[in-house]
Amino acid sequence: VIDDAHADPTALLKPRKTEATVVISDVRGFTSWAESRDPEDVLALISRVQGELARAVMSHGGTVDKFLGDGMLAVFGAPEPLRGHAACAIAAVRDMLAAVRQLEGGKFKLGVGVCSGSLVTGCIGSGTRLEFTVVGDTVNTASRLQALTKEHGVEAIVGETTAAALPESERTSLGEATLRGKERALRIYALR
Amino acid sequence: VIDDAHADPTALLKPRKTEATVVISDVRGFTSWAESRDPEDVLALISRVQGELARAVMSHGGTVDKFLGDGMLAVFGAPEPLRGHAACAIAAVRDMLAAVRQLEGGKFKLGVGVCSGSLVTGCIGSGTRLEFTVVGDTVNTASRLQALTKEHGVEAIVGETTAAALPESERTSLGEATLRGKERALRIYALR
Repeated sequence: VIDDAHADPTALLKPRKTEATVVISDVRGFTSWAESRDPEDVLALISRVQGELARAVMSHGGTVDKFLGDGMLAVFGAPEPLRGHAACAIAAVRDMLAAVRQLEGGKFKLGVGVCSGSLVTGCIGSGTRLEFTVVGDTVNTASRLQALTKEHGVEAIVGETTAAALPESERTSLGEATLRGKERALRIYALR
Repeated sequence: VIDDAHADPTALLKPRKTEATVVISDVRGFTSWAESRDPEDVLALISRVQGELARAVMSHGGTVDKFLGDGMLAVFGAPEPLRGHAACAIAAVRDMLAAVRQLEGGKFKLGVGVCSGSLVTGCIGSGTRLEFTVVGDTVNTASRLQALTKEHGVEAIVGETTAAALPESERTSLGEATLRGKERALRIYALR
């Protein structure tokens, strides 16, 4: 991307539609833990979590789009195309889960939603600061799958488009989920 | 804040617990509209929405913490304390709702969750880039109230702690909501 940007500095700014895998995660139990702690401890742990998650994402070719407290939105396949983005995302999710399980003697678990599909990406901003932005149904779906992990009592839920990149031995069907605003139910899987 | 930061450049970085009002919003109908549009149009509209929302937030003393596509997280009362942060947030929400209603001939509506309470704020980052971070139950609750606007078919839901800043004529009780992980139900109100 940096090289492309040198060749054509406006290329990164151009809105485009692309295929990618979105990973959205949230640390379970963090908020209640945080309530009885000093602000210093809370921020120190958040900082550590963000570091571990970013490392997992980047080591598999992904990009952290945003951290939101103990939450994260990462993209595999944008701003640069990434061959096998679904499989890369799954590998990163496994590292993320392992990293969070080791924090504070296993006090926390991660809830993760993963969805592959089309996205619109581009940069938004005015003047001095531009921000990489991803929008699209794939992002919303990943967010809903993340929320569904609580109901199903599992760590990671993967939509059918991502599941195609997983051997059957690495997934457990959770049936179909009808997400708000969708005509068709989505087959969903827990990561095994 | 800038002045404080000049006086003591590390003051802004210190984690602290503070009382504030969190506003989380989401543009209803944006994703389905976006699916049939060119990436350029999608990004242009997101950019316009973000500009309008930021203007509403800042004109009432708030700070946009993050945009996430068509979503926004804003804080009133952090990083600087803000007297009457609940009332300021409500005034901003009214401006936000009005601004979004005028986009594209009224095609979109905003869904907004508002919650006042304690937050931990600070800056997280490594080396060259620090990011303002807010965490706490107040953020999670605002997010859940935002999601509840769909079920209740209203534009904005305000938790009981924020509702105290509203005259009774400006709110409609929606009863109590039991949010995940909470012992006590929360009284919630639609903004009238």
